[in-house]
Amino acid sequence: MALRRILVANRGEIALRVIRACRDLGIEAVQAHSTADADTLPVRLADAAVEIGGPKATESYLKGDAVIEAAKRMGADAIHPGYGFLSENAAFSDACAAAGLVFIGPKGSVIDLMGNKAAARDVARKAGVPVTPGSQDPVSDPAEALKVARDVGFPLLIKASAGGGGRGMRVVESEDKLKETLESAAHEASVAFGDGSVYIEKYLSDVRHVEVQVFGDGKTTLHFGERDCSTQRRHQKLVEESPSPAITPELREAMTAAACALGDQVGYEGAGTVEFIVDAATQSFYFIEMNTRIQVEHPVSEEVSRVDLVKRQIQHAGGIAPALRQEDIRLEGHSIECRINAEDPEKGFMPKPGRIETFTLPAGPGIRVDTHVYPGYQMPPFYDSLLAKVIATGRDRDEALARMRRALGEMKVEGVPTTIGFHQRLLDDPAFLEGRVHTRYLREEMYAGHRMQQML
Amino acid sequence: MALRRILVANRGEIALRVIRACRDLGIEAVQAHSTADADTLPVRLADAAVEIGGPKATESYLKGDAVIEAAKRMGADAIHPGYGFLSENAAFSDACAAAGLVFIGPKGSVIDLMGNKAAARDVARKAGVPVTPGSQDPVSDPAEALKVARDVGFPLLIKASAGGGGRGMRVVESEDKLKETLESAAHEASVAFGDGSVYIEKYLSDVRHVEVQVFGDGKTTLHFGERDCSTQRRHQKLVEESPSPAITPELREAMTAAACALGDQVGYEGAGTVEFIVDAATQSFYFIEMNTRIQVEHPVSEEVSRVDLVKRQIQHAGGIAPALRQEDIRLEGHSIECRINAEDPEKGFMPKPGRIETFTLPAGPGIRVDTHVYPGYQMPPFYDSLLAKVIATGRDRDEALARMRRALGEMKVEGVPTTIGFHQRLLDDPAFLEGRVHTRYLREEMYAGHRMQQML
Repeated sequence: MALRRILVANRGEIALRVIRACRDLGIEAVQAHSTADADTLPVRLADAAVEIGGPKATESYLKGDAVIEAAKRMGADAIHPGYGFLSENAAFSDACAAAGLVFIGPKGSVIDLMGNKAAARDVARKAGVPVTPGSQDPVSDPAEALKVARDVGFPLLIKASAGGGGRGMRVVESEDKLKETLESAAHEASVAFGDGSVYIEKYLSDVRHVEVQVFGDGKTTLHFGERDCSTQRRHQKLVEESPSPAITPELREAMTAAACALGDQVGYEGAGTVEFIVDAATQSFYFIEMNTRIQVEHPVSEEVSRVDLVKRQIQHAGGIAPALRQEDIRLEGHSIECRINAEDPEKGFMPKPGRIETFTLPAGPGIRVDTHVYPGYQMPPFYDSLLAKVIATGRDRDEALARMRRALGEMKVEGVPTTIGFHQRLLDDPAFLEGRVHTRYLREEMYAGHRMQQML
Repeated sequence: MALRRILVANRGEIALRVIRACRDLGIEAVQAHSTADADTLPVRLADAAVEIGGPKATESYLKGDAVIEAAKRMGADAIHPGYGFLSENAAFSDACAAAGLVFIGPKGSVIDLMGNKAAARDVARKAGVPVTPGSQDPVSDPAEALKVARDVGFPLLIKASAGGGGRGMRVVESEDKLKETLESAAHEASVAFGDGSVYIEKYLSDVRHVEVQVFGDGKTTLHFGERDCSTQRRHQKLVEESPSPAITPELREAMTAAACALGDQVGYEGAGTVEFIVDAATQSFYFIEMNTRIQVEHPVSEEVSRVDLVKRQIQHAGGIAPALRQEDIRLEGHSIECRINAEDPEKGFMPKPGRIETFTLPAGPGIRVDTHVYPGYQMPPFYDSLLAKVIATGRDRDEALARMRRALGEMKVEGVPTTIGFHQRLLDDPAFLEGRVHTRYLREEMYAGHRMQQML
């Protein structure tokens, strides 16, 4: 169905991003917002706005029934969930459909399938995609677990099937710790997700996080190259770039083919990201999980492919996506994104919302800034600490890096601490420049010995 | 020689553009400024600043000796002239060289050659580049003029050899007006340029203005595709786009080849623009002139080629331009620039400087804004009225247009009248959308019957 009016069920920079895509398509955007977000840029730039509840996300952006009710009341025919909040909630996707609304994302069954880590690993195996060695199914019996563990070898990882955000996840160093760790992980998973099933995976250290951006039309899955997101703290990405500086063309070919095979296996529809870990030393890769939504770091893929992914999400949902073949997607240049958060790197990246007194953005060739912040903006304390995504693109990595340095030098934020200084330091870090950063680099090397090291 | 410190001998957005290119290269930028520009963004963002004279351009930005003196005093090893002011002043280029400074632009002899319209036409003929039918050499004798005129046919154009900005230029409709018009044009040329020589050209109406961006290394001239700049008022460009929506691939091929041949003919060095008029009906093109500097509208070429032209100017001047072959320059997508001026379109585009109270810039995918303006900025009355260049780039022209509409809708300027509304109107104009705008479209069609029509 042709979409005329879309409810934006998110906030911050991604809400504005969706509104801009709507505008480009001549589709009206209605901004759904909490009471805390009434006076924000997305509300001002949308065609209309509707309040959906109190300041806490659980009272508003996570409240599926309120969002659907608002969409119906405002005459929207579709809902864009952005990332986070309801974007990977299978029941919400189905509830939209049941209410006669187009959910801009996959069907509930696909979200469900990929949301369950053990099931997703199973799909990956069927699609011929490498997964980290480990148990085929959830394990609960200690004897069975020991058998798997000996196959896999120590150290190993216990992970919650329904997992996310590191909850229900444990590293096990040796056999004697297996039984008790299995039990505590299962308990934590049960509390966190209402599902205590866990499985065993080989534990790989010093790995890079590399993900592939895909887009499916239900029949064919296209890829838009990979993003390297190895610079992380506590599993949260801080810098993303495309292409990865640490993989060979052969590995890129294999990883993108694997991601498309995975999408094809489930008849994937819309934008998605297939996440892998890469062992740079052996150039081997393993599937971790698939995110069935647009990602924070999608702009770097847009910049190297010249394809507007959010616009395409909406076009696909409305049945008007223009034909696109893999050979039409020319990946060119290099793009890097730095997440500028209201956090103090010297205090373990503790979020610190406040009033933004000064907010001067960088500009010029190769610089894109996605942000919802403006001078005088009062950050509500209820949500994440993302202030802006600074995206620098160049003909090659060196040019992109130089432009990013220039952009961060021009940017000025007063009123809250920011991660700008951290990024500036990182951009001069030899390991980062040489593409040698692994996912625990901040904790184990860059901030080694720092008093807040344990926070990373 | 490797450049370490560049004096930026210009102001406004292009000064900032040059500073950013310096920053990307790790070269220091010193901003030369008039007393009126002491408190501006380029001054703040440069590594250092130096005052070169009074507020009027003739007291500062046009004063070659003051600029050279400032460069020496500040320890600069090169001067970037931007566009306008001293950028096409052959004597200044040579004076820089004599003072041991690198002028970032061609040698004086090349500027001189291309700056003389009759001489440039001669070079073009030698290079096999089509020029508008007309006199080979300047004409002064009325009898000779009549002979040429009968060959060329009426209406015809009398143009000053040293010309520019329409001065010394006359349309002659019929034989009986030839003699007196020749005399008045020669007189005006003599007063304006100190050179009364004029020549005769065929007058073509309903033509498009299409120019080719070139870059020469003294041996080979590369091109970066064409820009269509047909939307003009009084020979001033308002909108530019690349590629042109009105030429065939064959014509593009012929025009870019012609531009490179012209560059090769003079051993061109640095960035330059070869301007043509195109008769869309017959798909024939004629050389008008070559601009031996960076142009206002260079960003659209940067966006479709992913080559930073200002950076390359500096790299070439410093002898460190990376190797680039024509086949490395992949032109992809479509880019449009709207010049946002502090002018009132309803009052014949009269410039109206003032204090900028509100200045909210558009952003998001595909949008680049080159500007030196910020909220609270007091525009000095001494210079041009350019507030910002909004550049929208997309996969194709439709996407670029949609993004431009979105960007102009987001942009908010208060304190001075602007051309934003004019651009919004133009972006809905069928002739513009269909690529049918000719250089006198505003005067003869869009503003036909408007009381300020004669101003366009």
